[in-house]
Amino acid sequence: MNSLLTAVLYPLDLAGIFAFALSGALLAVRKDFDFFGTLLLAEAAGTGGGLFRDLVLSLPPVAFTDTGYCLVPLVAAVVVFVVRPTRHLISATTLCDAGALGMFSVTGTVKALEHGSSPLPAVALGVTTAVGGGLACGVLAGEIPAVLRWDQDLYVLPALVGAGATAALDAAGRLDVAGAVCAAALALALRICALLRGWRTPRSALWKRYAQTAEARSTAPGHWTSTSSH
Amino acid sequence: MNSLLTAVLYPLDLAGIFAFALSGALLAVRKDFDFFGTLLLAEAAGTGGGLFRDLVLSLPPVAFTDTGYCLVPLVAAVVVFVVRPTRHLISATTLCDAGALGMFSVTGTVKALEHGSSPLPAVALGVTTAVGGGLACGVLAGEIPAVLRWDQDLYVLPALVGAGATAALDAAGRLDVAGAVCAAALALALRICALLRGWRTPRSALWKRYAQTAEARSTAPGHWTSTSSH
Amino acid sequence: MNSLLTAVLYPLDLAGIFAFALSGALLAVRKDFDFFGTLLLAEAAGTGGGLFRDLVLSLPPVAFTDTGYCLVPLVAAVVVFVVRPTRHLISATTLCDAGALGMFSVTGTVKALEHGSSPLPAVALGVTTAVGGGLACGVLAGEIPAVLRWDQDLYVLPALVGAGATAALDAAGRLDVAGAVCAAALALALRICALLRGWRTPRSALWKRYAQTAEARSTAPGHWTSTSSH
Repeated sequence: MNSLLTAVLYPLDLAGIFAFALSGALLAVRKDFDFFGTLLLAEAAGTGGGLFRDLVLSLPPVAFTDTGYCLVPLVAAVVVFVVRPTRHLISATTLCDAGALGMFSVTGTVKALEHGSSPLPAVALGVTTAVGGGLACGVLAGEIPAVLRWDQDLYVLPALVGAGATAALDAAGRLDVAGAVCAAALALALRICALLRGWRTPRSALWKRYAQTAEARSTAPGHWTSTSSH
Repeated sequence: MNSLLTAVLYPLDLAGIFAFALSGALLAVRKDFDFFGTLLLAEAAGTGGGLFRDLVLSLPPVAFTDTGYCLVPLVAAVVVFVVRPTRHLISATTLCDAGALGMFSVTGTVKALEHGSSPLPAVALGVTTAVGGGLACGVLAGEIPAVLRWDQDLYVLPALVGAGATAALDAAGRLDVAGAVCAAALALALRICALLRGWRTPRSALWKRYAQTAEARSTAPGHWTSTSSH
Repeated sequence: MNSLLTAVLYPLDLAGIFAFALSGALLAVRKDFDFFGTLLLAEAAGTGGGLFRDLVLSLPPVAFTDTGYCLVPLVAAVVVFVVRPTRHLISATTLCDAGALGMFSVTGTVKALEHGSSPLPAVALGVTTAVGGGLACGVLAGEIPAVLRWDQDLYVLPALVGAGATAALDAAGRLDVAGAVCAAALALALRICALLRGWRTPRSALWKRYAQTAEARSTAPGHWTSTSSH
């Protein structure tokens, strides 16, 4: 049973890494990186989150112990570098990235729980596994990582839901394969809804105030209005 | 005695993390991050330096083993995100950040010395504990970290003084609670003086030359002067 | 023999770190960092790649266990901060940086192989040792790291050649001092050729298309042409 589970999990892991690596490679070519820059971003996106988690758990990072984890981002980098990205490829990548987000938020949390983490830090590590690669990519590409910005659809919250559901099931003694799949599916569904409906968190109180001030100035009768209150 | 010391140190640790996390959260809302981006920056600021130190010392990172260390930045993020930051909050945060700087430069050095580091690397790790979070924040926020820039008041030097004093006391066999408190107070005092008096390091020889060239051109009689010599 | 080898390798290591640290310090003064910012970038450039490799291999990072590794970047930072960089210093730094690139791509791979890495991850770690410091510097300086950009001469490929040659020799059972020196020399030669001849990787398919579209528009007869197709 365990070997069957591993036989299913390993290809899924590689598929998830491939999805993340595609996202990283797409960002790299958009920024006009050379091939090796594209490869570095694909590796960072595909394995960065898991690498951080393994370092924190004092485990040998799978990204540097398993050859498959090294090679899959290479394939993604070659595909994106050589084939001009089309809208279909970008849409497919976004969808697969959402699937990988759900999966890694669960597997990252499970790995942390298995190695003795208490629930809250395990959830933090599950979220990090899911979003860490995107953070690393954004930083290397000289951008504010999309997962942090207010004007981007929810990304961290779906990962948090997946990781939190996993930790809750584990605390209730009900974490099995079916439960893990449900938690991942929940995260995936939330991410897809966020993409389709443009869901975001409420804006900070500071920027709500900026927006109100700018709006008041723009409707003030007969006065010079400034568009920037920052 | 030891349990009393721990009973005092743990709340102080959390207070210091809270101060750093406030700084990180303030930067995040200034950059219009969403709530989870603000939370990530608060966590990075509050625990980033200690996390790096623990990884280098091959210790389980307290940021992921102690629930308090996870939760305190969450509180800071909620406060800053929900309550519009006022000048008083920002000033109070700057002052508390200076206190945390002094404290962590000492406790970081002590932890490194206790785990077998020689004095110079221990000082490096003490400084990293104190400034690492700010570095991580600046990078995630897409800015050059303030601690690196010439046009910002001294930040690394107070940490270096606190860490260096700690290592010196330890080498002299005189490192006790009173000595540690004095070293932290020295770092805090130096940081406050830097803030009040605008203390900075001298500028690099390269930029001193740029400034001289620009000044000479601006005073040249009857010639077109360029304001940029870079 | 082994002690003789160590007696040769240690000064070479320090020389390589000094070369990388000079590059980091030059970037820092160009960005108008203060002295401690320059020192931080020199340390990041000089020891960053090796630090990452040692963390992945679960080894005590030499950057924090050997005082020489701490002090050498300090010397580089002082030199660059106090002495206005001349064209000769910058050229000499670029050349020494190429030598360090070759050397560390080999020694990093050797260290990974000695600690049980399989060939492909060992090559990845060798490349990381050689380019990791430059990546860290670029990120801290708020720039896209030069090693990633298309408009910069080859940097990762020479490191990859050096690391790959080392792993290949090791797999063939022929990795000795002479072989290691040849692999490093090959990487150095490739980097120097890239610098002299402006060698770069081919551009991504996406940007080749952008360039073709822009060129077609600029030669279209009698039409308004836009210079930007991005």
